[in-house]
Amino acid sequence: MKKFTAVDDVSVPGLGLSQSIDLMIEKALAYKQDPWRDMGLGARRRIGILFLNPSLRTRMSTQIAAEQLGMKPVVFNIGSEGWSWELEEGAIMSGTSVEHIKDAVPVLSQYFDVLAIRTFPGLEDRLSDYTETVLNSFIKYATVPVLSLESATLHPLQSFADLVTIKELAIRRPKVVLSWAPHIKPLPQCVANSFAQWANAWDEVDLVITHPEGYELAPEFVQGAPVIYNQLEALENADIVYVKNWSAYGDYGAMPEVANDWMLDEAAMALTNKAKVMHCLPVRRNVELSDFILDGASSIVTRQAANRVWAAQAVLAEILKSNYGAD
Amino acid sequence: MKKFTAVDDVSVPGLGLSQSIDLMIEKALAYKQDPWRDMGLGARRRIGILFLNPSLRTRMSTQIAAEQLGMKPVVFNIGSEGWSWELEEGAIMSGTSVEHIKDAVPVLSQYFDVLAIRTFPGLEDRLSDYTETVLNSFIKYATVPVLSLESATLHPLQSFADLVTIKELAIRRPKVVLSWAPHIKPLPQCVANSFAQWANAWDEVDLVITHPEGYELAPEFVQGAPVIYNQLEALENADIVYVKNWSAYGDYGAMPEVANDWMLDEAAMALTNKAKVMHCLPVRRNVELSDFILDGASSIVTRQAANRVWAAQAVLAEILKSNYGAD
Amino acid sequence: MKKFTAVDDVSVPGLGLSQSIDLMIEKALAYKQDPWRDMGLGARRRIGILFLNPSLRTRMSTQIAAEQLGMKPVVFNIGSEGWSWELEEGAIMSGTSVEHIKDAVPVLSQYFDVLAIRTFPGLEDRLSDYTETVLNSFIKYATVPVLSLESATLHPLQSFADLVTIKELAIRRPKVVLSWAPHIKPLPQCVANSFAQWANAWDEVDLVITHPEGYELAPEFVQGAPVIYNQLEALENADIVYVKNWSAYGDYGAMPEVANDWMLDEAAMALTNKAKVMHCLPVRRNVELSDFILDGASSIVTRQAANRVWAAQAVLAEILKSNYGAD
Repeated sequence: MKKFTAVDDVSVPGLGLSQSIDLMIEKALAYKQDPWRDMGLGARRRIGILFLNPSLRTRMSTQIAAEQLGMKPVVFNIGSEGWSWELEEGAIMSGTSVEHIKDAVPVLSQYFDVLAIRTFPGLEDRLSDYTETVLNSFIKYATVPVLSLESATLHPLQSFADLVTIKELAIRRPKVVLSWAPHIKPLPQCVANSFAQWANAWDEVDLVITHPEGYELAPEFVQGAPVIYNQLEALENADIVYVKNWSAYGDYGAMPEVANDWMLDEAAMALTNKAKVMHCLPVRRNVELSDFILDGASSIVTRQAANRVWAAQAVLAEILKSNYGAD
Repeated sequence: MKKFTAVDDVSVPGLGLSQSIDLMIEKALAYKQDPWRDMGLGARRRIGILFLNPSLRTRMSTQIAAEQLGMKPVVFNIGSEGWSWELEEGAIMSGTSVEHIKDAVPVLSQYFDVLAIRTFPGLEDRLSDYTETVLNSFIKYATVPVLSLESATLHPLQSFADLVTIKELAIRRPKVVLSWAPHIKPLPQCVANSFAQWANAWDEVDLVITHPEGYELAPEFVQGAPVIYNQLEALENADIVYVKNWSAYGDYGAMPEVANDWMLDEAAMALTNKAKVMHCLPVRRNVELSDFILDGASSIVTRQAANRVWAAQAVLAEILKSNYGAD
Repeated sequence: MKKFTAVDDVSVPGLGLSQSIDLMIEKALAYKQDPWRDMGLGARRRIGILFLNPSLRTRMSTQIAAEQLGMKPVVFNIGSEGWSWELEEGAIMSGTSVEHIKDAVPVLSQYFDVLAIRTFPGLEDRLSDYTETVLNSFIKYATVPVLSLESATLHPLQSFADLVTIKELAIRRPKVVLSWAPHIKPLPQCVANSFAQWANAWDEVDLVITHPEGYELAPEFVQGAPVIYNQLEALENADIVYVKNWSAYGDYGAMPEVANDWMLDEAAMALTNKAKVMHCLPVRRNVELSDFILDGASSIVTRQAANRVWAAQAVLAEILKSNYGAD
């Protein structure tokens, strides 16, 4: 594993992608069973965990995963602790950016064995966001393996942890509904894109997507998954409901008006197969999801967040093994 | 020790509270003697050290104490590095708070074996502050032991270190005067409340409190300690003077006008029994305490701050032992 | 080594300064060869790495160097995570500063075995900057060795790494030209001062300084080095060009207008002896240095930044050995 930025990166030669995902899930669950089983794997190895945006779960879980593998993590808030980065190739840097990403990243590659980076989309220039300008610049100039901590369009560590969580439910081929939720401001499409990408690649679930008109996701991530605009119809017999807000991909970054109340309620939940409810957190209570659901037995959001550690650990272990000859 | 938020938490079954405090002081001093004596105690244990407010001594000393026990500390500035927290039960989160404390804390409990939190009072709503809304929410939703790094009304790690410092002076039943000092803005009552609470619970000192009218502390912390409005009278024969500003508890958060100059001067010190001067720091020089005193032989503020490490280490060790079966 | 703030601090009794520098360079290169060769040297030792200003390379390299020696680093952003510092002796602290440096530093000295501090000049009061008010206050009140991470007038860890980088080029007595570059705002003179100081003290290079009129550096750092106002003339047969902007020392902190374009171009480079180009980073591309040069084979800025680790490690090792009896 030379990098980890999307589902394809877990692909193992000779195995199909779905089976490769299964294998990674098994590795994550093995760490959950025994967190310290590979504590020598990362000895004398360092990971730079870099944030262009805020983070709680991703920050903590990546750091913990690294330490459980014996690595030394260094966490760094790029904008506030260091120098703001210029991203544009050929820029005349007479503005507010103090350092070009093409100068910073080669240096960071000298300091660290693995680099992890979080970068949110601007939600203004779709082409720039969907070509992953920042992440790809970062990868281009890095000379060590790069781990995405969420990028402009995807959040692969989240999605991998989501699949680990679904696997633990031990439901035979569950119907999983990705259900759009209201929010007060435009959010990235990353979590939804990424979950769709992973769920589509994994043969163990049937994915259905539901959202109001105007909130269609990028086709490359939806692929063949059924999109149903009627939320109640979509939820019928769902085993798992993954709740998440996102802003429009078409009218990029916009929040088209929505007629009905899309916040999941008791009546909607009654249509499901006693579905478990997932959300990547942070969640705005009583806007995205009600107290009633979050505080009830159907919510598995804490377990889902806890599984971030094991997902990160499995990925980091693979990166160490394939890049530094360990194992 | 399931939590550490107030003096009662050090209480050992079968011992009186004063004797329990003595025992804890002995443990702290043993760590001062040999910092690394229990360096295996916290092996593979993690503490999340979380700040809603700034900190120097508390941040450093807690981190150092944890490392000396072999724990892995992770320090996190909640507001600036992560997501701002909603505290109100049932809130419709359409404002600036991004995550509810009841969602964040259960996740943090999955990531850490011990959680430490600093939260200052708002000094606007006395009932909310004095019922410790934030700290108690935190404890309610945590599934691991919680350590207060200063809360709305108390600062127990400070007070414990204060008693360790007094013990080291080896003065037989010293007269300790808690003496109000001027300041330029309203400060919490935490340090004063907490010191009164600990000094009252400990049979080894005689506590006297002095402050201008209007600055009466909450009765629950003052208990039977004499309150003398005349500072000079209070200071007579004092062995130790603990200097600290606080805002009004009665007219909550106000700064009632003060007639005399309450900043300790030479004349006042001359009335004491060559008293040692304590302050929790940070101190505003020549506002709260003069250069003359802070730079003189009577000041023990650096030693007092240094003892924060041993106090934190003794508390963390007890938490590890009683919650994780070590020892 | 009781402190590390300027070139003289590497002086070894019985050796000339130039030979002392050679010895330190050898030590740095030995760590580059085997980073973990002294991993027990700093066992149970802690370094407080304190920032009053932003930092990327210095922050990372110092932390990494400390960990490679087995030390525990604690990084702290003084202003944003803790309390803003008062520096003026005798100040009546009724303003925005919450804690006096003379109270904070003795406490930090109790917490750490080594203290490292970054403090930028204000560029307003030359006398205050050039007497190193902040750094010297820090040293005055510290009771443990102090390491400068860049101060008002010098950046010794940078300069030491610069000499390590030059040594690696294995050019016999190279001509090194320190060449002023344009910038959009007034920068400190530290890097230029410090490089001149180290290069002058080291017999292995011939230093030439070039800058527009009005940008003369302080004589104490320039010493006998030739100053040539004509950049092209200065660059003739240069083996190494060290590019850096600085503001005026004479009309302190000003940016006197400059007639010619001082950004190094192809024509200028053609005059050199296929010179290698150095810069301490961060660099403003196409303002200080062109993409053409930075992206070309002559640039050694990444290697120079990477060498920061080995320089810091050699210095920290000496501090540990001479202060804590190791070795």
